[in-house]
Amino acid sequence: MKQKKARGQLIVLSGPSGVGKSTVISELLSERTDIYFSVSFTTRAPRVGEADGVNYYFVSRDDFEGMIARNELLEYAEYVHNYYGTSLRLIQEKLEQGIDVLLDIEVQGAAKVRARCPEAVLIFIVPPSFEELSRRLHGRATDQEEVIQGRLTKAREEYREIPHYDYLVVNDKVSEAAAEITAILMAEDCRTQNRLHLVEGV
Amino acid sequence: MKQKKARGQLIVLSGPSGVGKSTVISELLSERTDIYFSVSFTTRAPRVGEADGVNYYFVSRDDFEGMIARNELLEYAEYVHNYYGTSLRLIQEKLEQGIDVLLDIEVQGAAKVRARCPEAVLIFIVPPSFEELSRRLHGRATDQEEVIQGRLTKAREEYREIPHYDYLVVNDKVSEAAAEITAILMAEDCRTQNRLHLVEGV
Repeated sequence: MKQKKARGQLIVLSGPSGVGKSTVISELLSERTDIYFSVSFTTRAPRVGEADGVNYYFVSRDDFEGMIARNELLEYAEYVHNYYGTSLRLIQEKLEQGIDVLLDIEVQGAAKVRARCPEAVLIFIVPPSFEELSRRLHGRATDQEEVIQGRLTKAREEYREIPHYDYLVVNDKVSEAAAEITAILMAEDCRTQNRLHLVEGV
Repeated sequence: MKQKKARGQLIVLSGPSGVGKSTVISELLSERTDIYFSVSFTTRAPRVGEADGVNYYFVSRDDFEGMIARNELLEYAEYVHNYYGTSLRLIQEKLEQGIDVLLDIEVQGAAKVRARCPEAVLIFIVPPSFEELSRRLHGRATDQEEVIQGRLTKAREEYREIPHYDYLVVNDKVSEAAAEITAILMAEDCRTQNRLHLVEGV
């Protein structure tokens, strides 16, 4: 039953670098074409194949600090010496139109979203094991060993924040991880408080 | 990812008489054959097509009151002059084996389950409208008009309990209602507290 929603769901996806989040998100968005995927702003350099306005809005450090100063960000964080942040205005517009908004942000940003929007749905994606994460990071072959080690250390720190997330998805097979996230979003739409307007006399 | 669960989920389904719960449950169980559907005990007479041990265990009022006296029921309630109740022992065994257990019980019973098992997942099924519920009850043609009116009055009372349920599913199309319940159960399996044992170092 595809009812018009009073308000969209704000969905936050986090997970360590190398877990395969982008692939899971692509799979999810191919099924749920009604979701608005929020493109973050970042000061990090584009990787091979990444395009401005698609993977991120790539901006300079000065530009990013200007947005912070003008309070234009729902959340932002510094991560491996680069800024990442989310535009507040665009998100709010979509949610008010009843459109679900998906944010791909790391743990500091997620904590800020939770504080500002307690109704946000927080999902953390993990690899089947740390060994597998290391294998995936090495397989990617875009980073120096030192950077990879930094990402693994960071991953261990991020894991400590998992208990603050509502849901935990293990990305073993991409299609299954995407199916679980689809189920989570469907279930969240079924939450009683999101549907009371559908029944008479309650 | 079909991981062995530490403990099964206890799932409670409620909804007014005539909403089509049995049909939704059949559809759900045909997909999720791993779920144990708890057969309730009742003192009401079997309807045409109902079999003992399948739809209900049909027992006498004396037998039922004996079970109450021996504290053998997880919950029980009196509903339209008949008792309905759930065996405690069987449910506990299944949950401990990591098997999900589905209970089809009315609002009084659900409140008792919630009190005893706060981690139970409570789902309420409603028809698209009261008009449609009345149409379905009349279409069923097993009950007298007086009984139907009694069920509709009861339904309005039951609706007041909806805010105590975790999820609300509208049974417009059976397949969609069953798909929503399937999604709810999958999402509940993904809850962080049910999965922390899958990640190292948390």
